[in-house]
Amino acid sequence: MKRTALGGKNALYPSLTTIVGADVDGKPNWITIAHVGIMNHASGDIPQYLSIGVHSSHYTNKGIREHREFSINIPSQAMLAITDYVGLVSGEKVDKSTLFPVERGELAHAPLIANCPLSMELKLHQTVTLGQHEIFIGELVNTFVDEACLTDGKPDVAKIDPLLFDFMKIDYWSIGQRTGKPWRDGKSLKKQGE
Amino acid sequence: MKRTALGGKNALYPSLTTIVGADVDGKPNWITIAHVGIMNHASGDIPQYLSIGVHSSHYTNKGIREHREFSINIPSQAMLAITDYVGLVSGEKVDKSTLFPVERGELAHAPLIANCPLSMELKLHQTVTLGQHEIFIGELVNTFVDEACLTDGKPDVAKIDPLLFDFMKIDYWSIGQRTGKPWRDGKSLKKQGE
Repeated sequence: MKRTALGGKNALYPSLTTIVGADVDGKPNWITIAHVGIMNHASGDIPQYLSIGVHSSHYTNKGIREHREFSINIPSQAMLAITDYVGLVSGEKVDKSTLFPVERGELAHAPLIANCPLSMELKLHQTVTLGQHEIFIGELVNTFVDEACLTDGKPDVAKIDPLLFDFMKIDYWSIGQRTGKPWRDGKSLKKQGE
Repeated sequence: MKRTALGGKNALYPSLTTIVGADVDGKPNWITIAHVGIMNHASGDIPQYLSIGVHSSHYTNKGIREHREFSINIPSQAMLAITDYVGLVSGEKVDKSTLFPVERGELAHAPLIANCPLSMELKLHQTVTLGQHEIFIGELVNTFVDEACLTDGKPDVAKIDPLLFDFMKIDYWSIGQRTGKPWRDGKSLKKQGE
């Protein structure tokens, strides 16, 4: 294998395409965000924290700063065009509040997209500023899933059929096949190695 | 669509499975991490920041705290078993330093896995503590890619063939098909809507 250096080129892809929701100027607004992060693994009293990285110039940021609440919605492949559209137009210029049916969970200002297979509502826990981006770290409050996307009571990624995002060649991708089992498929090596 | 509430269940999946490298006690050590994040989008003088969330009890954390450098390596599907193994055993008990051929880039203490299709070396920029996890936010210094995984000079996710991770049903997944083009496929809606 011959490897070549690309400089500081971000290659942490594919990532998951989401639609972030917030109330801005009294109305739901939406922005397409694939620069997301899983911060920790919730356990016991420790909640789950998730991050979204949003350029500080975006309209959505105003609402998250004001209300300290937001949602992360996971659109399906069937929602590809509308998801892409949400990322093309700013709520500053175009009223996106009627694009989707809106639900509310426990939080007053985290609008949820009712026809997405999955939505999460979050309270803003901390904001980290890096360059011109605000990284909003949210505490997950509740998760809503289409019952048709459950298998054995758990969200099924195949049924959700999410949009994966590649910013290297700039494409949307689907997920493929289940290929293995974490914390099991390495066990044969464990026996040899110890 | 009928949706049901799951409580604060993290559903930001699939995520990308990576192997994080650090020098610990004078030797390279590796840990499998799928709880990663993209913080911002680099532009001009602003570097790219990426995050990894690692429980503070892990052996790897010692090395990252000491040297403030680490790597993020992207294994292929062909490396599924060894990637899973790396996540099953602690460097505290098992010497993992000889599992992979090691390369170094610009940083002295960010060991890179030479036979991974892609590796990134990072300087620790900031650590955010959430619950019992340390979220290491790294500044990306350089990216190394297998030349066989390039198309038109860019890393090609299909050729990299990454391991996706689902913690809801606990499975590894492959990527599927290219399904669309960001900042293009929503444009037809843009014309209607404005």
